[in-house]
Parts: sequence; C-alpha cells; structure tokens
Amino acid sequence: MNSAQLHEDAIVIDGLVIAKWDRELFEDMRRGGLTAANCTVSVWEGFQATVNNIVEMNGLIEQNSDLVLKVRSTDDIRRAKAEGKTGIIMGFQNAHAFEDQLGYVQTFKDLGVGVVQMCYNTQNLIGTGCYERDGGLSGFGREIVAEMNKVGVMCDLSHVGAKTSEEVILESKKPVCYSHCLPSGLKEHPRNKSDEELKFIADHGGFVGVTMFAPFLKNGINSTIEDYVEAIRYVFNIVGEDQIGIGTDFTQGHGQPFFEWLTHDKGYARRLTSFGKIVNPEGIRTLGEFPNLTDALLRDGFSETQVRKIMGENWVRVLADVWGE
Amino acid sequence: MNSAQLHEDAIVIDGLVIAKWDRELFEDMRRGGLTAANCTVSVWEGFQATVNNIVEMNGLIEQNSDLVLKVRSTDDIRRAKAEGKTGIIMGFQNAHAFEDQLGYVQTFKDLGVGVVQMCYNTQNLIGTGCYERDGGLSGFGREIVAEMNKVGVMCDLSHVGAKTSEEVILESKKPVCYSHCLPSGLKEHPRNKSDEELKFIADHGGFVGVTMFAPFLKNGINSTIEDYVEAIRYVFNIVGEDQIGIGTDFTQGHGQPFFEWLTHDKGYARRLTSFGKIVNPEGIRTLGEFPNLTDALLRDGFSETQVRKIMGENWVRVLADVWGE
Repeated sequence: MNSAQLHEDAIVIDGLVIAKWDRELFEDMRRGGLTAANCTVSVWEGFQATVNNIVEMNGLIEQNSDLVLKVRSTDDIRRAKAEGKTGIIMGFQNAHAFEDQLGYVQTFKDLGVGVVQMCYNTQNLIGTGCYERDGGLSGFGREIVAEMNKVGVMCDLSHVGAKTSEEVILESKKPVCYSHCLPSGLKEHPRNKSDEELKFIADHGGFVGVTMFAPFLKNGINSTIEDYVEAIRYVFNIVGEDQIGIGTDFTQGHGQPFFEWLTHDKGYARRLTSFGKIVNPEGIRTLGEFPNLTDALLRDGFSETQVRKIMGENWVRVLADVWGE
Repeated sequence: MNSAQLHEDAIVIDGLVIAKWDRELFEDMRRGGLTAANCTVSVWEGFQATVNNIVEMNGLIEQNSDLVLKVRSTDDIRRAKAEGKTGIIMGFQNAHAFEDQLGYVQTFKDLGVGVVQMCYNTQNLIGTGCYERDGGLSGFGREIVAEMNKVGVMCDLSHVGAKTSEEVILESKKPVCYSHCLPSGLKEHPRNKSDEELKFIADHGGFVGVTMFAPFLKNGINSTIEDYVEAIRYVFNIVGEDQIGIGTDFTQGHGQPFFEWLTHDKGYARRLTSFGKIVNPEGIRTLGEFPNLTDALLRDGFSETQVRKIMGENWVRVLADVWGE
C-alpha cells in the first residue's frame, strides 16, 4: 500500500482546527481526507455567544451535509469514514463558556461538545492559562473536572499553565490531553511542553496531539513538513505509539483581526503575545495537503501500523474512553 | 455632649451591610442614626442579575424616600445627614458581576456602585478569595484595578485571599480597604487579618473597617458590644486613628437559605464554610442599636474626636479620595 492508498484507507483525525467555518473549508477537509476534526466553537465567548456559535455551526453542517456530519460518538466518526464525509467534533478552547454553572457541562455535551480546554492563555474560574502566572486548579475547577468526567467531555490542556495542567492530570479520572502542542525540547516557548510534562501526561494515561503552528516550531515560518515530522518523532519517543496523535491548529481562512482577537485577553483587553506572520510549514500549508503528512511519516520510517495510530486511530480510542462508550 | 448627643451629631457610616432590603430595615437604620451604609447588591450574581438587584434597590429607595436616598458622592452623604435620612452606597462583595468586561466598571459606577470587593471567598477572573489557595492578582485583575482607580470605585479586600490582597494594595494608586474584617490576633480564622496584614494596608494608605460578625469574634455568639470595641481598639492600635472605621456586616432580616447561598461557591456548588448559629453581639444585635456603639467607644476611653473619626468621618474622607472628588 503506497502512502496515498494508506491515507485514503486510514482514519484521519485532526485534534484541533480553529478555521473559518464555511463550505470552502469543508471542501478542503475532504480534499485532505479528514475523517473528523475537533473544531473550535468557543474561545473568549461566554455561554450565550457560544450557543450562538454552535447554532451557526449546526446550520453550516446542515447546509453542507454532502461534505460533513456532526459527531456525538465515535460511531459517528466511523460513519463519516464510511460515507466519505468529515465528522465535526465541536470543541472549546476555553471553559469560560461554562461560566459559573456546573450544569452547563451537560448542556453543552447535549449540544455536541466533546472536548473542552480548561483555560485559554489566562485565568478563568477553573485555573490559569500558559501566558500568565499560574496558581493552579481552583476548587470550582475540581468540580468542573468531576462533572466533565461524569458527563463525558475530554479535558484539553494545550493552552493551560503548567501547574493547572499537572493538577487536572492528577484530578481527572479519565484521560486528558494536550490536543495541540509542541515540545519545548525543540524550541523554548510558553506554549510548548517540556519532556517532563509530556512524560507526566503519558504516565497518567493522557494523550498528546502534536501541532505544527509555525511560531512554536524550531524553524518558525521557514518550517517544512519535515520539521513537523521531527516534532512528532520527538513526542513519539517520549509518550510512545499509543498516546500520540495529530492536532494541527489550522487557522485556515482567518485574517489578522482574528489573530488580534486571539492574542488579547478576553479578545480585547491587554495583549498577551504576538505571533508575527503565520505561514504553515511547507508541504502542509492547507488542510487539503493532509495526505502529505502520511507520506512524510512513512518516509521518516514510521510503520504503517504506527502511521494509522498517529493519524487517527489513537484519537478514536481515547475519545471512546472519555466519552464513556 | 453625652454619648446620645454625640451619636446624633456625628456622621455615622457603616462600611458593610448585607441585610434584607425593605422598609423595616430602612426604619431600623434611621433608629440607629446611620448617615450612610455600603449596601451589598451583588455577591454571586453575574452582570444582568446584578443590574436587576440594582433596579430593585432603586425602587426601594424611591418608595422609601422619606427614610433613604441614593449616594453617588460624599455630598450625598452630607445631604443625607442634613435631611435626617440614611444614604445608600451600593456595593458589591464580588467583582464577578464585571464578568469579562473592563467597561462594566464604568457601567456600574454610572448605576451608583462605589465599592467593589475583588473576590468573594473563591477564585474569579481577578484573583482568589480567602477560602481557597490563592494564586494572586491576575493580569486581567490588574487591568480591573486600574479601571476602578480611573473610574473611582473603591477596591475592597475583606473576603480576598492574602496574596491577592497584598498585590491589589501594591497595584492600586488609590486607597483600598478591608471594609469589614477582624484581627486574627484576637481569633485565628481564614477571614481575619493578621497584624502584618493590617499594618501593610495602613502603611500603603489603605483603610480598615472593623466588623462584629460573631463567628469571627473571640467569644463567638456569646460576644457583647465590649468584644466588638476590643477588636476596634486592637485594630486602632495598629492602623492609627485616621484609617479605621466601622463595617458591621449586619445580615439583618435574612434566614438560613441566604446563609446557605453565601457559604457555597457560586451560591450552589461545594460548601466553603459553615457559620453555625449567627447571633450579633449583645448590645448591637440590630442596626437600631448603633447608638450603643458610640457609647461603648467613649466608655472604652476613645476621645470625642476619635469616636467621630471611627464612626464615620474617616470613611467619608477616604471615599472622597477614591471617588475623585
């Protein structure tokens, strides 16, 4: 089986996409052979604005039902594969949308939300993100983790501070993830995770999705798909072949105003960071180029079985576990 | 001038009342000779529920305009004194109602809110309360402090954690307060403040209102007004005669369901503390007994000038400073 055939045959999951949702994007997902993706529907928004985002996404899914379907279970992911569509897993990059209501965890699960990052860059009611001093998981945060475990929503820690992350890993009775991160062993950055952090989450049954967001890669915007594979190999060597997956962080379709919104606290307050120019690694500049990743992994020496795990099978297994299937 | 005449003549400010707001309560405030009080209109509520509380309070003030008036400036406090009414200063015990909007500081100032406690017992977007581990003032919290300074809203730290409190004291360009606290030198309790903390806020130009909430007093529910005066004397000896005032924490009119709401995070989540039975100190069981406090302070040896300062003049001075008059 050559790389194109393998990609065509494999379950391909992207653990984090924060693109501009429209038909063009869904078409590119199909071009890239994505079976499913964790699609961000909340970052700085509160409860009601997030519900509105979900309503909008539901409408888009309905209007483009020839290309995509909504994922509520891993059965839906398998159905997407069988029907040649891309499954839309709704996810948050910030638990802020839960506001102060434990009951909203179930509310959003009912609306189709399967993965929720505990904090985005700064402090919320639960803990603190990776761009400021981190006092750890709050008492309310512990109640939220218990509720997410019960309801079946995966805790994501990618943008979460080191202390809050460690405490969520210890608090959760279900596997948690860094859905999209890079190793600081290759480049020092507040968003990147140390070898110890990667080992810690893996030792506690957690999961690591590897991103390719250029500002966090060793070669920045001059990176190629080989730099991405180097990072995957680096994480693979620490966490092993069963707890690793892909989480690209594609921002496809968004312009500068969107990045301004992301990089300011609450979307408008003080600036937290500056990405500079964003260019995805050569060879995987768009979702449509996803087949190149399967090819690059094979070329790097990963076996077919390992490539299938990394490209999606591991994500499906851990999501089934967390979703209580 | 005997104590009754002095009380009648003095400006009497209660820095914290969280009573059940109705005509009966306002009548008792008049009986007690209160010139003004910081009246809590938000604890766990978010933005809109807090606006609704303010609307309700506005209605009550209007319906009882023979007894009370709304305070937006210290001129209004002096007008209340001249007209024989009690001025209602609206205050929050939790900055949670600001939600994630810096602009809401001005919004609430426009609605008449003059004092806002940064956190109530637990973590919010700004910092952490005194009933859980405290990671300090967040970046957004620093922006909120700057906005409160600019707009003219006093930062209250009574229920705030030690680390967040220290950092607000250092961050604020205007005096901040513990509007209602007791010294841990008389009784060790998470809500009480150490000698060092009392000295620290005073050394930085801040203000201390002394409470008489029985569970935090040395003799608990067996306390008398003399125990309250002992605590006032204790704080007076640390902060001096110009930075001290009264902040009773009267909960008059409320029943057990209200205390259950107060003692659970967000009003419904995990229990944070249990007050047990609440009985105010003998001699000052109701707002109507306020004149006894002037009498007890004189009996303890405070001079007439000192009593006037403690009973209200100090509060008026510091509020004028913070409100930018």
